[in-house]
Amino acid sequence: MLPPQVADYLNLHRKDSLYSLFELLRIPSIANDTSRPDRCMEAAEWVAGRLSGLGFDAEILPTAGRPAVAGDLHVRDTAPTLLVYAHYDVQPAEPLDEWHSPPFEPQLRDGRIYARGASDDKGPLVAFLAAAEAWVRNGGPPVNLRFFVEGEEEVGSPNVEPFVAEHRDRLAADAAVVADTMFFRPGLPSITYGLRGLAYFQITIEGPSRDLHSGLYGGGVVNPANALAGIAASLHDAKGRIAIEGFYDDVVETTDAERESWAALPFDAGEFAAEAGVEALAAGDADVIERVWARPSLDINGIVGGYTQPGSKTIIPARASAKVSIRLAPRQDPQRVVAAFRRHVAAATPVGVRSSVAVHATARPVLVPPDSPGVRAARAALSEAFGTPPEPVLIRCGASVPVTEVLQRLLGVAPVMIGCQSPDDRLHSPNEKYGLDMFERTAVAAAALMQNVARPLQ
Amino acid sequence: MLPPQVADYLNLHRKDSLYSLFELLRIPSIANDTSRPDRCMEAAEWVAGRLSGLGFDAEILPTAGRPAVAGDLHVRDTAPTLLVYAHYDVQPAEPLDEWHSPPFEPQLRDGRIYARGASDDKGPLVAFLAAAEAWVRNGGPPVNLRFFVEGEEEVGSPNVEPFVAEHRDRLAADAAVVADTMFFRPGLPSITYGLRGLAYFQITIEGPSRDLHSGLYGGGVVNPANALAGIAASLHDAKGRIAIEGFYDDVVETTDAERESWAALPFDAGEFAAEAGVEALAAGDADVIERVWARPSLDINGIVGGYTQPGSKTIIPARASAKVSIRLAPRQDPQRVVAAFRRHVAAATPVGVRSSVAVHATARPVLVPPDSPGVRAARAALSEAFGTPPEPVLIRCGASVPVTEVLQRLLGVAPVMIGCQSPDDRLHSPNEKYGLDMFERTAVAAAALMQNVARPLQ
Repeated sequence: MLPPQVADYLNLHRKDSLYSLFELLRIPSIANDTSRPDRCMEAAEWVAGRLSGLGFDAEILPTAGRPAVAGDLHVRDTAPTLLVYAHYDVQPAEPLDEWHSPPFEPQLRDGRIYARGASDDKGPLVAFLAAAEAWVRNGGPPVNLRFFVEGEEEVGSPNVEPFVAEHRDRLAADAAVVADTMFFRPGLPSITYGLRGLAYFQITIEGPSRDLHSGLYGGGVVNPANALAGIAASLHDAKGRIAIEGFYDDVVETTDAERESWAALPFDAGEFAAEAGVEALAAGDADVIERVWARPSLDINGIVGGYTQPGSKTIIPARASAKVSIRLAPRQDPQRVVAAFRRHVAAATPVGVRSSVAVHATARPVLVPPDSPGVRAARAALSEAFGTPPEPVLIRCGASVPVTEVLQRLLGVAPVMIGCQSPDDRLHSPNEKYGLDMFERTAVAAAALMQNVARPLQ
Repeated sequence: MLPPQVADYLNLHRKDSLYSLFELLRIPSIANDTSRPDRCMEAAEWVAGRLSGLGFDAEILPTAGRPAVAGDLHVRDTAPTLLVYAHYDVQPAEPLDEWHSPPFEPQLRDGRIYARGASDDKGPLVAFLAAAEAWVRNGGPPVNLRFFVEGEEEVGSPNVEPFVAEHRDRLAADAAVVADTMFFRPGLPSITYGLRGLAYFQITIEGPSRDLHSGLYGGGVVNPANALAGIAASLHDAKGRIAIEGFYDDVVETTDAERESWAALPFDAGEFAAEAGVEALAAGDADVIERVWARPSLDINGIVGGYTQPGSKTIIPARASAKVSIRLAPRQDPQRVVAAFRRHVAAATPVGVRSSVAVHATARPVLVPPDSPGVRAARAALSEAFGTPPEPVLIRCGASVPVTEVLQRLLGVAPVMIGCQSPDDRLHSPNEKYGLDMFERTAVAAAALMQNVARPLQ
């Protein structure tokens, strides 16, 4: 349990924390808005300023893209060090006309904070800052604290690996928390212990030097769009498995214990399908959680070629291309998948057209032990903050948070993932919101996590 | 041989014919420019005016789209009647900045007429009008002449069948010429006796109600773009044959005589590939002519779905669609193909997405006897106009000119196809041109054809 003065401080300063969050939410720190890089710097300065104000040795550090913020609060050599990761950048707010209030003018309505980034990830970030403040103002935290606040998570963290490698000493810690994941359901505290990786490709097929008349050439030349469809289709076999040679070699099989624990989760396949807006799920209603969390998947994210306006035009297009992303199960190596993917596409390309493969992004999958001290600390912290029942649940997530695996690999820590976002927060969508209650409880959980890391639980 | 006074008239009035063509070329009668339907009417009025001036009973007749022009010059009951088909509409001129002179301001440069429609199809149309004039001014033509000038050829002649059905009596003839086809090579007079048909589809696949996050849903829901690629790929088998059930049932096999005559044509597969800008042809260098003229082919003309901007976005798109056209070999029935295509797509659609098929256009293939009186008349006319050697050759064409089959079926004539366009005329492309020499010789050929139809040759 938190010391009463820390808990009281958080309670008494709830409004201050909310105002603080509103300040940050007013900065449109959109990572992919290259026209206004100053807005990301403004957010980085805000974060660094808050950390400095709490006595952290804080600094804005450049990357090849948006700057990151590192802050260090050393309390004593004998205490363990906790690294807190969050990101200050946000998704673009478009489509703007679907927002009920302007995305960068935060509003509190019906107990919810509405703004772009409220839940992803400024709310959790400011909650962790509030927790640090509560400790700092009440005798100091029981752990050495390090913050690492990134500005490129929403564009795939392309510079996070070189950054962590360069600043290894500055980020080294005994435990780490990634404050950017989600509850399994609204109101059900959750700890994420696995993420899928990613390999994102663009396939381009080039054929004739110009669009050709399909009457004069059809049957005589290979059509790049036909070829692309054939190559894309060849990536799956008739059973829906990914048909790239050796693809499943490294996939970690789900354990029986995991399957059992997932079966106990409050999950309904029909609800999942309804929420996605589909009439039926891929491969039926069984094992949906496993397929989405722990098995690889391959999706065409975009495809284009030839005449795409209304009506008809009888051409053989000169080129066609597809964006294809593969979600990787734990222990699959993106670089091996990249090489195998390139081989597959080259072998599937018919004579008469040329194919090329560009790699847009890769991220390694991550799996942390579900019974680590960090997980136990987080579990107790969530119980304290959100009350029990329900007991916090252990989950995985099918998406990627690239920093997690980088911290694990380069710093040798087992990051615990608790973001306290809610699946109905409309992340990346108009009218993103964060429950005021979630915000306040996340601050309590963060403060408790700092305590629990300092005094490991059994 | 033409009577000297007719040949002399054509020769003496070459400049008048050219000015006449320039007048028509100045009218931007683009069939699919719905913002300026008056331009098509203007062209129709110009054609009707020319015909009336020659003593034709000419009329502008409405269709569900652009108007058509019909003109009748009855010389005597005992003479046969020749129907001349051409079209006054043209392709759009875009991209405009690639033209060396404005597309609707015709220029004569280096013995070539540059303008949109110069070759396709206003040049041949005005050449036939000039031929009619030469006969009218010199004792009257030896045949009864009917002109049928359409305004929707460049948009697939969607109204030509109901129009011909409605005006059957007005168009009835003993012989017909379709003045809208091409020489096999520049300088090689050619008569086309077969065209492929067309069935043009749009497949739309719909899945989730919105674009989904591929990390959170990948593997759980069926991806509409994946499904579309699979369906599109399933339309061909591993040997490159069209895999729709029963598809080849009605295909007329090429005769040995045809194969022999095509083998004698001056054709080089390497040149054909170079002209198309491809490194290798589909299925190698053998039988290219047969594949392009006489075998069916299936091409994706356009495909689109999901995120198609630069960079990456990890979504499962809500929908994806493809435009697919099938060129039909003689005797394939477009309606049977439509039904078989729909069945194939429905059967290939995985559970979890919905597919729909829209039909944009159909055209029946056509094959006229290569030894008909009309073909003999045309052959002699081309020889007279273009000189021999080379002897005119008999060819087919892989594209469609929908009116041809309609005239054959509804009027019971065997249309002879001579357009005297040249394959290097850049039809449908910037800087379309028509050789002044081709224009003048086409007028001679047209006049000779009128004579040869009147006095059948052995």
